[in-house]
Amino acid sequence: MCGIVGYIGIDQAAPILLDGLEKLEYRGYDSAGIAVYNGTGIQMVKATGRLKVLYNLTQGGASLPGTAGIGHTRWATHGEPTDVNAHPHFNKDSSIAVVHNGIIENYMKLKKKLEAHGYEFLSQTDTEVIVQMLDYYYDGNPLETITKVMHRMEGSYALGIMFQDHPGEIYAVRKDSPLIVGQGTGGNFIASDVPAILKYTREVYYIENEEIVRLTDSSLTFYNIDEEELEKAPVMIEWDMNAAEKGGYAHFMLKEMHEQPKAVADTLNPRLRDGEIVIEELGMSDDEIRQIQKIYIVACGSAYHTGVTAKYVFEGLARIPVEVDLASEFRYRNPIFGENTLVIVVSQSGETADSLAALREAKANGVRVLGIVNVVGSSIAREADNVMYTWAGPEIAVATTKAYSTQLTAQYLLALKFAQARGLLNAEEIACMVSDLKRLPEQISLLLSHKENVQKFANRYLAAEHVFFIGRGIDYAISLEGSLKLKEISYIHSEAYAAGELKHGTISLIEDGRLVVAVLTQPSLYRKTISNIVEVKSRGAFVMAVTNVGNTEVEKVADYVIYIPETNPYFANSLAVIPLQLFGYYVSIGKGLDVDKPRNLAKSVTVE
Amino acid sequence: MCGIVGYIGIDQAAPILLDGLEKLEYRGYDSAGIAVYNGTGIQMVKATGRLKVLYNLTQGGASLPGTAGIGHTRWATHGEPTDVNAHPHFNKDSSIAVVHNGIIENYMKLKKKLEAHGYEFLSQTDTEVIVQMLDYYYDGNPLETITKVMHRMEGSYALGIMFQDHPGEIYAVRKDSPLIVGQGTGGNFIASDVPAILKYTREVYYIENEEIVRLTDSSLTFYNIDEEELEKAPVMIEWDMNAAEKGGYAHFMLKEMHEQPKAVADTLNPRLRDGEIVIEELGMSDDEIRQIQKIYIVACGSAYHTGVTAKYVFEGLARIPVEVDLASEFRYRNPIFGENTLVIVVSQSGETADSLAALREAKANGVRVLGIVNVVGSSIAREADNVMYTWAGPEIAVATTKAYSTQLTAQYLLALKFAQARGLLNAEEIACMVSDLKRLPEQISLLLSHKENVQKFANRYLAAEHVFFIGRGIDYAISLEGSLKLKEISYIHSEAYAAGELKHGTISLIEDGRLVVAVLTQPSLYRKTISNIVEVKSRGAFVMAVTNVGNTEVEKVADYVIYIPETNPYFANSLAVIPLQLFGYYVSIGKGLDVDKPRNLAKSVTVE
Repeated sequence: MCGIVGYIGIDQAAPILLDGLEKLEYRGYDSAGIAVYNGTGIQMVKATGRLKVLYNLTQGGASLPGTAGIGHTRWATHGEPTDVNAHPHFNKDSSIAVVHNGIIENYMKLKKKLEAHGYEFLSQTDTEVIVQMLDYYYDGNPLETITKVMHRMEGSYALGIMFQDHPGEIYAVRKDSPLIVGQGTGGNFIASDVPAILKYTREVYYIENEEIVRLTDSSLTFYNIDEEELEKAPVMIEWDMNAAEKGGYAHFMLKEMHEQPKAVADTLNPRLRDGEIVIEELGMSDDEIRQIQKIYIVACGSAYHTGVTAKYVFEGLARIPVEVDLASEFRYRNPIFGENTLVIVVSQSGETADSLAALREAKANGVRVLGIVNVVGSSIAREADNVMYTWAGPEIAVATTKAYSTQLTAQYLLALKFAQARGLLNAEEIACMVSDLKRLPEQISLLLSHKENVQKFANRYLAAEHVFFIGRGIDYAISLEGSLKLKEISYIHSEAYAAGELKHGTISLIEDGRLVVAVLTQPSLYRKTISNIVEVKSRGAFVMAVTNVGNTEVEKVADYVIYIPETNPYFANSLAVIPLQLFGYYVSIGKGLDVDKPRNLAKSVTVE
Repeated sequence: MCGIVGYIGIDQAAPILLDGLEKLEYRGYDSAGIAVYNGTGIQMVKATGRLKVLYNLTQGGASLPGTAGIGHTRWATHGEPTDVNAHPHFNKDSSIAVVHNGIIENYMKLKKKLEAHGYEFLSQTDTEVIVQMLDYYYDGNPLETITKVMHRMEGSYALGIMFQDHPGEIYAVRKDSPLIVGQGTGGNFIASDVPAILKYTREVYYIENEEIVRLTDSSLTFYNIDEEELEKAPVMIEWDMNAAEKGGYAHFMLKEMHEQPKAVADTLNPRLRDGEIVIEELGMSDDEIRQIQKIYIVACGSAYHTGVTAKYVFEGLARIPVEVDLASEFRYRNPIFGENTLVIVVSQSGETADSLAALREAKANGVRVLGIVNVVGSSIAREADNVMYTWAGPEIAVATTKAYSTQLTAQYLLALKFAQARGLLNAEEIACMVSDLKRLPEQISLLLSHKENVQKFANRYLAAEHVFFIGRGIDYAISLEGSLKLKEISYIHSEAYAAGELKHGTISLIEDGRLVVAVLTQPSLYRKTISNIVEVKSRGAFVMAVTNVGNTEVEKVADYVIYIPETNPYFANSLAVIPLQLFGYYVSIGKGLDVDKPRNLAKSVTVE
């Protein structure tokens, strides 16, 4: 979603702001802007499009003098991506500037009230309401004004605020949108995420909901919403930004696909000790595991698809009933929490707004929450009762690949652990499945090494308008992810269907030459899906199948077959997804699209 | 799916067969054929396309002499819809003829074996394997040969079989596909469904799995697979075929949409007595209801969508955890059945193969099954522990409307009953909700009376290639049905999304002019969905909204708004779906499509 940066210190602010915004590009954006105090007033530049436009407009920041400023990359919610809707936003006399990440839900009501008082609005954004409210309540005391406005806003926000008559200060505040503060030697920073400031400092403060911070060039002061000062301790960031480079690959997505063998091994190996599965961070005794009566897996997007897979694994191996929920639905549907329920929240960024809200809903009901998260110290990691980290490293491409693979791996481990604790798998069975898990990284490498075959096939389908993915059981879960991967980066309308359900309506869309991707990794469902392939073939579909090595019979019914190596059927997703990721990637680059930053999408979805 | 008829008696067979096939048109088909014994041999005519073609080829049957024959309408599964793939199928010397409904799963293996014995195959069908096997094993004894073949086939089948050297007999058999036998005065009948023979007799025998029947012009003899004779009793059919006429409407679908007020009232009223909800056929005491710990709702297509809605109603009102499953997935996923589980199977036809298999899976596990079924005496109705009928009357259009509405109504009643038995609603609350239910029929009529407005809007979107439906909670369930209704009859690729999930990928498909249909009937989710509308509007979407009367604020963010009357939010689906049904209907007829019989689709899906 939107990205915020701010700087106040001894150096020129504009180049630092531009540099920070560039590091937040991965969050997705469609316009950008910066505002700097130049000694007499606040000067602002904003522009639609890539950061390069803003960079050129300001000569890399050089044309904007001043050592205090705020910057923003905008992912449109209210109002189209235009220059006037870009942030920062000013009040009428340009004495207050605001950047905002989030959504003000009651902005229509607030706007009407301000209009009754004679305020005029230039943009279609909800954000402009914030700066006009600050203007309306401003009495010379920034802190008091900000808390007044906070009390009147409903929704989510991270804000960076400057007042012209307090030129040595920047204010920041947040509620349900991420914001961090960095303490440097020659100045201080705010940002939506750590990479924006990592070049300048590793000393970071995490701002909690409804906390306010005042930054000067040499001090940080924290307040709660009652204007009482707070004591906060910094955290030292240990990351290495090198990991976020593209290496030798053409795109982050391709690089990250190739990092999957390592990422899966990194997630697996620390939890395997002498053939035993040890998940210390789980914080549950075998006795507690045995008492679990129900699991909710809550997530969004691809992480949700790992949950759909995990349901089969948990239910099949550990015989615990699992319900998988979209976080945006779970949080509002008043779920029934019985005794001994475990909620598992899966999120790469750990900041996904809906997933975080779902976590809070569960905790408010006294239910234990386990986070499966990639970003250390993120909101979900901090608020969950226990965290199982996926060790995928930073993921930059908007379309997830390695985070997805590690989320699957983490859930396999959990399911095996649960099944063992409940006496449903003996040591020998565990050993056999662990050995299958340990082979996954090299099997993924093998599939990646055949990527040219997928590319050749993908090049034939660049003009496709509609694609259907079909499968049953875990193969349906794989289809969901294969479809999303294609859709989000190629803009082709693809849709996944439980293979047996296609005939209840969607098969009316099958006509000559329509591409159908069929997934057949589950031996018990194999023949049934063959029948469904025959049904769509009869209506003219062109069928690409992904199936297990040895199922050569599929070649008789499908037009193109990709084989995956042998593994336990519960783990087949980890292999079958690889050619589907490659397919989406090659269709996207074949069409000349921006594969790492598809239009309209954000890496980390921190609004609802 | 496919339709089978057969006749042996004193009248000319061919006109009777054609007439019967016409009555089965509603099941969907793409080719048809008949075979009649003409005194010296079996004469066959088959043709791709509508029955009219076959009718013309045979001069309405007049050109085919003989008083014993079998007929078939084919819905392609194995092999494209061609003349040669149409049924009946012959052995090499045309001495055995077979019609088949179902799928032979091991046909490849059987075919290979026969080919090794020198058999040649003309068609791509699985059915041809059956007739060639009959030829291979035939020793002059039809019954013995048929059981031999049955033992070797895997899959589902209803078969009509004629042997040239037994001219006074027709044989029929079934497994997991429907088949009935009718006993007339001047002859006997077989058929996939009752309407095919209703003109001639009302005395019907239901054939069970792996039963065989021999028909002569004056006798019926039933056998089990061990060739032992069985005693069976007939059932008298009470239906009236008049109900299946189009009345004054242009299409069955339009007629059936207009029958919804009556169908809903008919489903509701017999179960409301002095303001009390009485569901005698439920067969459960209040004590048993209180003990229910989990409900599975299992169904396909639109019936599945009623289950998605019902989950909210059951969980919200009765606080019983509900899991909704696609029948094709449920039957193979080894679901966990705890104590006091109730499985609800929802099906219009009561013959949906996957739903029937799911029912059997549940029963095999000792779980109680309640059927919610429209067709009296259908397989699901007969095999469920209890049946709650929806009184929608015969539904002919492939796209369901009135059956859907009555399935919703039945589940509302059940949820209220359960909530009351569990002490979660008092008499006053029940009375209030019952009064809302009783208002639904007239509110549906009101919405139907404004159909011209929907038609005007639909005419603008005839050329759409992609449409998205969004909503949250029950509004998502409504979106699922709205999307399917459009997709199945207009061949437009539409897709429903939980509104909050759109931004995790699919929003990359939103571009200028893309139609998005937003559903906002749930007050608690209203503001959230408004935010999602603003998101797609920002990216150029054209938004049609369906919302509650009074929500005029929606007009500020959506381009076109349809209002539905006030009701309890749990029942809003029953109203909001009406304009969406109309939208699908008008887009389809605006495009000049066959709205009652969309391509590739069958009314009653009796194969997997």
